[in-house]
Amino acid sequence: MSNQEYVKEITNIEENFAQWYTDIVLKAELADYTETKGFIAIKPYGYAIWENIRNYTDEKFKKSGVKNVYFPVLIPESLLNKEKDHVKGFAPEVAWVTQGGEEELEEKLCVRPTSETMFSTLYAKWLKSWRDLPLVYNQWCSVLRWEKETRPFLRSREFLWQEGHTIHETAKEAEERTMQMLEIYADVIENLLAIPVLRGIKTESEKFAGAEATYTVETLMHDGRALQAGTSHYFGQNFTKPFHITFQNREGKEEYAYQTSWGISTRLIGAVIMAHGDNRGLKLPPRVAPIQAVIVPVAMHKEGVKEKAQEIYNQLQENFRMEIDVRDNVSPGYKFNDWEMKGVPVRIEIGPRDIQEGKCIMVRRDNQEKIEVPLANLKEKLAEVLETIHQSMFQECEKRVAQKTTIATNMQEFEKNLNENQGYIKAMWCGDAACEEKIKNATGAKSRCIPFKEEHISDTCVCCGKPAKHMVVWGRQY
Amino acid sequence: MSNQEYVKEITNIEENFAQWYTDIVLKAELADYTETKGFIAIKPYGYAIWENIRNYTDEKFKKSGVKNVYFPVLIPESLLNKEKDHVKGFAPEVAWVTQGGEEELEEKLCVRPTSETMFSTLYAKWLKSWRDLPLVYNQWCSVLRWEKETRPFLRSREFLWQEGHTIHETAKEAEERTMQMLEIYADVIENLLAIPVLRGIKTESEKFAGAEATYTVETLMHDGRALQAGTSHYFGQNFTKPFHITFQNREGKEEYAYQTSWGISTRLIGAVIMAHGDNRGLKLPPRVAPIQAVIVPVAMHKEGVKEKAQEIYNQLQENFRMEIDVRDNVSPGYKFNDWEMKGVPVRIEIGPRDIQEGKCIMVRRDNQEKIEVPLANLKEKLAEVLETIHQSMFQECEKRVAQKTTIATNMQEFEKNLNENQGYIKAMWCGDAACEEKIKNATGAKSRCIPFKEEHISDTCVCCGKPAKHMVVWGRQY
Repeated sequence: MSNQEYVKEITNIEENFAQWYTDIVLKAELADYTETKGFIAIKPYGYAIWENIRNYTDEKFKKSGVKNVYFPVLIPESLLNKEKDHVKGFAPEVAWVTQGGEEELEEKLCVRPTSETMFSTLYAKWLKSWRDLPLVYNQWCSVLRWEKETRPFLRSREFLWQEGHTIHETAKEAEERTMQMLEIYADVIENLLAIPVLRGIKTESEKFAGAEATYTVETLMHDGRALQAGTSHYFGQNFTKPFHITFQNREGKEEYAYQTSWGISTRLIGAVIMAHGDNRGLKLPPRVAPIQAVIVPVAMHKEGVKEKAQEIYNQLQENFRMEIDVRDNVSPGYKFNDWEMKGVPVRIEIGPRDIQEGKCIMVRRDNQEKIEVPLANLKEKLAEVLETIHQSMFQECEKRVAQKTTIATNMQEFEKNLNENQGYIKAMWCGDAACEEKIKNATGAKSRCIPFKEEHISDTCVCCGKPAKHMVVWGRQY
Repeated sequence: MSNQEYVKEITNIEENFAQWYTDIVLKAELADYTETKGFIAIKPYGYAIWENIRNYTDEKFKKSGVKNVYFPVLIPESLLNKEKDHVKGFAPEVAWVTQGGEEELEEKLCVRPTSETMFSTLYAKWLKSWRDLPLVYNQWCSVLRWEKETRPFLRSREFLWQEGHTIHETAKEAEERTMQMLEIYADVIENLLAIPVLRGIKTESEKFAGAEATYTVETLMHDGRALQAGTSHYFGQNFTKPFHITFQNREGKEEYAYQTSWGISTRLIGAVIMAHGDNRGLKLPPRVAPIQAVIVPVAMHKEGVKEKAQEIYNQLQENFRMEIDVRDNVSPGYKFNDWEMKGVPVRIEIGPRDIQEGKCIMVRRDNQEKIEVPLANLKEKLAEVLETIHQSMFQECEKRVAQKTTIATNMQEFEKNLNENQGYIKAMWCGDAACEEKIKNATGAKSRCIPFKEEHISDTCVCCGKPAKHMVVWGRQY
């Protein structure tokens, strides 16, 4: 086992997490840098993960009544300017098209950073009566944000996402939709990606530009930093008023509609890397893995080995996403390392003696466990092992969240816990944005959210000592 | 039957085909205009057609070894400039990003009009050995072309498409891939969209900017104009040389790879509208229709009618894409027209007497035929009717192609046929671009392609009378 040699290739995860991350992205061939500064190329293996996320999510969306659309990638400046908080939040980080063909444009167009303004304009045009409501539209597309510091998947000038935008007859219905979509995100992240989430509401300072309320699902990475994995926004009438999205209500009167938006992105690939990976490389949860099991024949030159491996492959690929590695220019050991690096959940080894004994060896990527499996019940066993791996990976993450969640009742504790442990800090808060700002400046930690399940930690704000209004979960973030 | 009233709503297809087309796009709610000039919003019904095209095509792609990726939407000017024919073809019609965030960019970036240059740059970086080949990558994305005149789906400043880009060890393998993809396009257009195609190679003047050869699948619309529905390009080493895409070959020597690209787009939605539609509206081929059958209960207020309709809906939606129309503010007649306008292949009517007699009525959208169907074998019958509709729609189109294909041996015949009949003109050609130019200027018809199956029409060029080299199919185009 050339584990030693292997570690040389990837930076040690405990020594330099940031470099480890970049190594995984490049060496597992998820993505690469391009000639367009700050923009990445998502390679087949990375894109296949995104397709699995998209397909799973899209099915849930459709079952909940979401309809997909595609709206323009370019938005006129005047539209972006219509909602003042929104433009303040986004204008500094958009890319502008100023020339089309050989002509200078009269009005410059931004490449969409998000499409509230475009959806709102079209909804205003289409909406007539309460009978048309709700309109629950979504698009899968790319968006641009002109970030100064970029990192593949986590903070890229371009990323893929879905943005849902809905309008409703009543505030209640819009609020329910906001929560419904947050629950779908929690489902995707927990049941597909095997990462436990913390659900909550963002504080005023952290909410989306133009939103009435932002709900979030937060996740915790290997190094104890938090990553906001999905958000769902309730807008009330903040956009429907400036954009004049009105309808004739059941009483025949003109009324402003209520609005939501919600999104998840290719950031989730970053979350999968950082929540599960280790010194051997990427570790993919089975349900999202593009390759769920790889067959590596051992002593491939021996009679019948390649054929048996192929037979197993043919049989398993009816039910699983399979790969078979019959490269003749590298050793089995090299192949083992290679597929571990790529995070394939199960490796199936089969050699001449295995064939004689009517069995093969399954090796779990998550904990290196080796399991002898009779060839007769391969399908059942593989299904079982993949399921076990999912559960086990989820539990590992849960354990880390528990270990890395601490309580602070004063700023000394807050800083000490954060510096020793990173992770989530539970602490009370007076509700004043000034205290959030102070905490951020002192520790680098931001409020992640006010969890839906608040606990009572103490009576006073961790920062100013005034009476506390909420328990907040804090943490340094990606 | 308010057919008369209905015709008032849509422009008559024989009187003003262009206006009829626009009416369908807007009234069947496929797309709408937006505040971004020349850009459309694809609405749920239009997007669902695209999703069906994409899913069908993507499955064929994957079976043939295609891997999906996602590469940057912005391409630096210097990359675009590397292949001289290519930049000449595209530079006049691209949109330029000149500002990112609050800074002026040092080098302007174009919004991709196509991605040969980006793929080539990355292939050059990744390719090392013949063992890495072939690389068969594709992306589903949007592209921009700054058209002066735009029409929804047919010629829009932004459209959705897939672009495949591949590199190979040998010219032969690359050429085979070019043809393989053209066959997939023919399959999609004929077997999913029920439109017969003409396969052929483009003349020098009509081939893609930078290609060695462009293969095409051409289709003929209701009004007799041609529409290029998909193209597949063989590049030889035209890009691999300027972009330095080399590999170590089996003899250990450095060699330039061979390249292809191929694409289909949301134009195909335009093709479906114009190949099949009529004065009642859109007419969707069953395999691509977002709704394959709609149930319209008649005398809905009568006891048990709504319930029975719902029961049928529940039963059929296991196997078909179904809709049920229980709106209580419009009449059944209105609903019939509405779903005909939207091109739903089958309408299922069920009223109190039908229920008593244990049957329902299926009405075919393509020819208005009414079929009594016992409720007991609804599933089998619907499957059969949908299949019949597909075949019948395909044959209708085939008949039109036959009617609208004529032969010309001199320019008088050429013009006369074209003006009387539109359609395809088969005529011999000397191989000189000057004759193509002359024909285009005189008649508005371009060479569609040299069909793979050439016929011998006469010995001399239809234009100049010199010895003929090829039979060309000509036609006015979209």
